[in-house]
Amino acid sequence: MHQRSAHRSLLVVGSVAYDDIDGPFGFHKNLLGGSASFIARAASYFTKNVAIVGVVGDDFEQHHLDELAALGVDVSGVEHATGETFHWTGKYSADLSSRETLDTKLGVFGSFAPKVQDKHRDAQLVLLGNIDPPLQMDVLNQVRAPALVAMDTMNLWIDIKRKELEAVISKVHTLMVNDEEARQLAQEHNLRTAATKILAMGPTSVIIKRGDAGALLFHADGVFAAPAMPLSDVKDPTGAGDSFAGGLMGYLAYAGDLSPKTIRTAMVMGSVMGSFAVEKFSVDGLRDLTAARIQKRFDEISSLVEFDRVQL
Amino acid sequence: MHQRSAHRSLLVVGSVAYDDIDGPFGFHKNLLGGSASFIARAASYFTKNVAIVGVVGDDFEQHHLDELAALGVDVSGVEHATGETFHWTGKYSADLSSRETLDTKLGVFGSFAPKVQDKHRDAQLVLLGNIDPPLQMDVLNQVRAPALVAMDTMNLWIDIKRKELEAVISKVHTLMVNDEEARQLAQEHNLRTAATKILAMGPTSVIIKRGDAGALLFHADGVFAAPAMPLSDVKDPTGAGDSFAGGLMGYLAYAGDLSPKTIRTAMVMGSVMGSFAVEKFSVDGLRDLTAARIQKRFDEISSLVEFDRVQL
Repeated sequence: MHQRSAHRSLLVVGSVAYDDIDGPFGFHKNLLGGSASFIARAASYFTKNVAIVGVVGDDFEQHHLDELAALGVDVSGVEHATGETFHWTGKYSADLSSRETLDTKLGVFGSFAPKVQDKHRDAQLVLLGNIDPPLQMDVLNQVRAPALVAMDTMNLWIDIKRKELEAVISKVHTLMVNDEEARQLAQEHNLRTAATKILAMGPTSVIIKRGDAGALLFHADGVFAAPAMPLSDVKDPTGAGDSFAGGLMGYLAYAGDLSPKTIRTAMVMGSVMGSFAVEKFSVDGLRDLTAARIQKRFDEISSLVEFDRVQL
Repeated sequence: MHQRSAHRSLLVVGSVAYDDIDGPFGFHKNLLGGSASFIARAASYFTKNVAIVGVVGDDFEQHHLDELAALGVDVSGVEHATGETFHWTGKYSADLSSRETLDTKLGVFGSFAPKVQDKHRDAQLVLLGNIDPPLQMDVLNQVRAPALVAMDTMNLWIDIKRKELEAVISKVHTLMVNDEEARQLAQEHNLRTAATKILAMGPTSVIIKRGDAGALLFHADGVFAAPAMPLSDVKDPTGAGDSFAGGLMGYLAYAGDLSPKTIRTAMVMGSVMGSFAVEKFSVDGLRDLTAARIQKRFDEISSLVEFDRVQL
């Protein structure tokens, strides 16, 4: 990939976890998971200026972090705490269209207080992965003047910490959620109306991730629909949204500007990385990608929506 | 709209019906419905070379047919039979995301035997709306050498007349179904794999309609994804798929060729007409459209998926 000198720095705060996943392809234990794991790996294909803040327990295998470091990710902000690594157990339906959480062990994440090192406080792009809203706010208070702060969240926080969550939402530029979360947050089924309601909470843009229906961006420049690649071979949807976010933010760091035009392309790069992620378990779909393979998938997604702008 | 001399003729076979619809906007009785009503009206904006074959009972109000005739639709193939017009009663969920059939009165449709008049037997484009598969086959046997035959179907026929349905599918060029029907027909959840299985049944293309997630076309030229317009004001999803089909086939008749390029544009015109249809009850969303309004919606949908084809 062509390297530009103007790469912006990307700071990612999120979970580094182990996942146990049951589903149509069997039961897989102790898979590397967590939002930061997917985000940083996806972003690393676009920029070497990525740092993560997170926490792992003393059961965590160091080679996972070594791998990220080898991809150019700054993992110095990952704390090593005494106790167990955050561990999620989930089960997918036979057709992979839905999942249920069977168990969540917070482990060292339960007492996590994210600390942004001084060298990362001037990050230009900040991605607050899906963690407890007060922790997201803590991070916001530690960074200086980011050009773009994006955040993710989930149904749990909308349910039990709406006030704290809304406080964070009011301070970020971009909220990225899936369709059900957008509906729940806005208390509105219609996605366009839900987006309007979310924008009224403060962010300048909202991105609604819709899985195999693509992703929608609503902002002052209008609406953009990033297509999703129709895939015949989907193994594990875990991390698709985080890989999308990583591709998007990584591309923004790479491109070095935040114009509406660049953001549209970044959305498609998000869709590209999400499509790779679901083809294998854990972060395996994001391993060993090349600029050529990323470009090929980008071109395939581009051709999906290629048509003549006719005049009647 | 610019009129071309080379307009191909479009023959539509389908239902002309009354719908009673319950949902979040109240209970509406005796709405004009039926696949042919939506298809012909949507197509009429693109070509005046549309004819319909169907049947109505003696309770049917003639002004509905007069209106279609005034739009240039040839309604001479609509039989007037003794008895009641096909009557469907359905109820939508509060968020319009699902519906159930409360009652179906076949009426005169129960003994309908479609007759294609000689003047319509050379139609170049044929659209077999969702009716009993043996009736679709009857029509196929009456037309001479259409350049394109497309068909729709529904879960009921997949359930109870799979063999007859597969016989029709094997003889058409294009199957248009929604995602659930595609899954049920192919007995496969993954849409891309389902499309591959359906193509193996004979058609050269399959179009999967996904409501607000757009529509997918699978054929030898690859995959095309027609975007859907995110709408804030959706009143009644009834007829959306038929309006899509009418816009698509109408545009093909207008364009006068069946190249992959033209088919892609036609898919987007289908999406345009589907988006108008759901904004009002019955065919009201398709009333009084102008070339300018259609062009504007087409341009809006185009801009939804506008992004730079970058090289990394």
